[in-house]
Amino acid sequence: MTIVTLTTDFGTRDPWVGIVKGVILARCPEARLVDLTHEIGAQDVLEGMLALAAAAPFFPAGTVHLAVVDPGVGGQRRPLAIAAGGQWFVGPDNGVLSVALREPGWSAVTLTAPAHRLTPVSRTFHGRDVFAPAAAALARGVALEALGPRVDDPRRLEPPRARRAGPAVVGEVIRVDRFGNLLTSIVAGDLAAVGGAPVVEVGGRTVRLVEAYAAVAVGKAGAVIDSEDRVEVFVRDGSAAVTLGLGRGAAVRVRPA
Amino acid sequence: MTIVTLTTDFGTRDPWVGIVKGVILARCPEARLVDLTHEIGAQDVLEGMLALAAAAPFFPAGTVHLAVVDPGVGGQRRPLAIAAGGQWFVGPDNGVLSVALREPGWSAVTLTAPAHRLTPVSRTFHGRDVFAPAAAALARGVALEALGPRVDDPRRLEPPRARRAGPAVVGEVIRVDRFGNLLTSIVAGDLAAVGGAPVVEVGGRTVRLVEAYAAVAVGKAGAVIDSEDRVEVFVRDGSAAVTLGLGRGAAVRVRPA
Amino acid sequence: MTIVTLTTDFGTRDPWVGIVKGVILARCPEARLVDLTHEIGAQDVLEGMLALAAAAPFFPAGTVHLAVVDPGVGGQRRPLAIAAGGQWFVGPDNGVLSVALREPGWSAVTLTAPAHRLTPVSRTFHGRDVFAPAAAALARGVALEALGPRVDDPRRLEPPRARRAGPAVVGEVIRVDRFGNLLTSIVAGDLAAVGGAPVVEVGGRTVRLVEAYAAVAVGKAGAVIDSEDRVEVFVRDGSAAVTLGLGRGAAVRVRPA
Repeated sequence: MTIVTLTTDFGTRDPWVGIVKGVILARCPEARLVDLTHEIGAQDVLEGMLALAAAAPFFPAGTVHLAVVDPGVGGQRRPLAIAAGGQWFVGPDNGVLSVALREPGWSAVTLTAPAHRLTPVSRTFHGRDVFAPAAAALARGVALEALGPRVDDPRRLEPPRARRAGPAVVGEVIRVDRFGNLLTSIVAGDLAAVGGAPVVEVGGRTVRLVEAYAAVAVGKAGAVIDSEDRVEVFVRDGSAAVTLGLGRGAAVRVRPA
Repeated sequence: MTIVTLTTDFGTRDPWVGIVKGVILARCPEARLVDLTHEIGAQDVLEGMLALAAAAPFFPAGTVHLAVVDPGVGGQRRPLAIAAGGQWFVGPDNGVLSVALREPGWSAVTLTAPAHRLTPVSRTFHGRDVFAPAAAALARGVALEALGPRVDDPRRLEPPRARRAGPAVVGEVIRVDRFGNLLTSIVAGDLAAVGGAPVVEVGGRTVRLVEAYAAVAVGKAGAVIDSEDRVEVFVRDGSAAVTLGLGRGAAVRVRPA
Repeated sequence: MTIVTLTTDFGTRDPWVGIVKGVILARCPEARLVDLTHEIGAQDVLEGMLALAAAAPFFPAGTVHLAVVDPGVGGQRRPLAIAAGGQWFVGPDNGVLSVALREPGWSAVTLTAPAHRLTPVSRTFHGRDVFAPAAAALARGVALEALGPRVDDPRRLEPPRARRAGPAVVGEVIRVDRFGNLLTSIVAGDLAAVGGAPVVEVGGRTVRLVEAYAAVAVGKAGAVIDSEDRVEVFVRDGSAAVTLGLGRGAAVRVRPA
């Protein structure tokens, strides 16, 4: 009974996710399928990477993570499976699996074994034809090495990071969540570099860094250290994205008060 | 093998739901996760309460219902678990769990036991840190009392109700469903108070109360008693919300013809 | 441990899908529920039929497919269960189950047995009251014949097909997928009728038929044979629907170059 998580940009209207699930269950009936998200922006590899990186650490050892955000399908990019930290990761070699490469002792293979692919392999839907059969194989205990030859240089995608600028730290908005909160590239560990009690500058405003949403009045903006240890700009009971008119890429600066 | 249902306002694009599922499965691998909805309006406690109240009665005894619509996260509101009617309910003390309090003999606790929380508890994501571990504990058979001290006064949220006005009953639209149907606060039991064969006034129009959608012509408006025993205004093969230009809060009156 | 897939136009915000799942699990706790999609266009029976037809062949024998796109609920259309190709199909008799009728030796019944319905049956929600209990019965091994009397004439819905026009083949766009790709009614088998190397005319343009998305430059249009063997018009790393300004029903012609 192995967990297989799914992270894609397929959306939930087309039948693609259902087809991938059918292929997995036909080859590994005992797999327990868990949707992480299918609403990654179309072909947004960075968003897919961040979502998988956020969720994978909370799953138990033995989990297989399937991530298909694959603008290069049908081209030269390699299909991969990676063993890392007691879990498995399956997807295209475009950086979407980068979280696995942060673990010491990872090992990776490219998916070439005919026994673990559908035949023929289409040019447009490797989620079905290549990645789902590989995930099913790992879920039922097939060894990583049986899926194809070893790969030493999987592509890594680094999320934007903050940098020092005098007594301040500067970064950017990397995601807007459903509530309109602005998640930034500045993490808690960066704040030690700020010379003094920190305040957050964003969109021409300065907001306080507080302990919890409830520390500011309804409708007012603030910043917190969020559940991923990121500096997050919010408007209490509202949308910071709408109120401040900001989105991904907007500049954020944490400076001494 | 215990069912754990999930009702949230997290949406399905961000990784939050996946993270909650990971925490549950890591602590209770045999839990069977069932999504009720993650599309509750952001911080709309009433909508979350109504969704859970609609679905919970159809699940078998032993089911654990996790409901996280939590505008007060990080503030003073208590985290709760409630045993009621042979099921369990886990979520914030803001009324979202009110369906449980309709059952005679409910008992409730506040979630303080460190063994059944993640450490540290964040200020922004109790779905992950407090509610998911509690749901997992109940799903694997931990006693309610082990989760924290008893609470006698959980907050109740009452849905809008209809009232009599002479020979008529007046209420309001409480939800617009995906088809554009207008679900109202007037229930079948209220109609006995109407003096005569009832018709429905809404948005300046009068529509007939019929047995089924098929009883009116395509494109025409009518009203039915719906599957939750509510008076529901519809447009056949169309959207009453669009056609009548109405939404939540719109006045509805059932009067004698 | 039987798989039950769900295909509906219920959306994922209202509690309807959760209620259907509760009814199934209360009657067949060991059912493994797999969402195909709940985002079928409201009452779009053809889209539902196409989604189920695309996904069902990838599921293992014994799977029960529940499909509820049901504009005629409460009217005269019959509720059906069909055994075909080692799988089961449950839904309204409006063509949504047509994929089952392509299998030789199918057999069908209408769902009348009181033991396999909720009581009373509502006029608006047969997904809950009729179809879910029937799917649960089949999932736990109840014989098809126990659900009701045999039916010999289920309604069939045929997807649009291409036709020859001199040395060309003409068809239409039948669906726009999440990426803005235009899926057409022209399938790979139709191309043999084209006298010469084929090119695709759509929206006043002529595009090349290539092997894979990667064969055209970023931002340019092309056509491929997609994973369902359909001629599909795409814009690389973009949306053909937006770039070409086309949608369902748009004419497509494949002619010799």
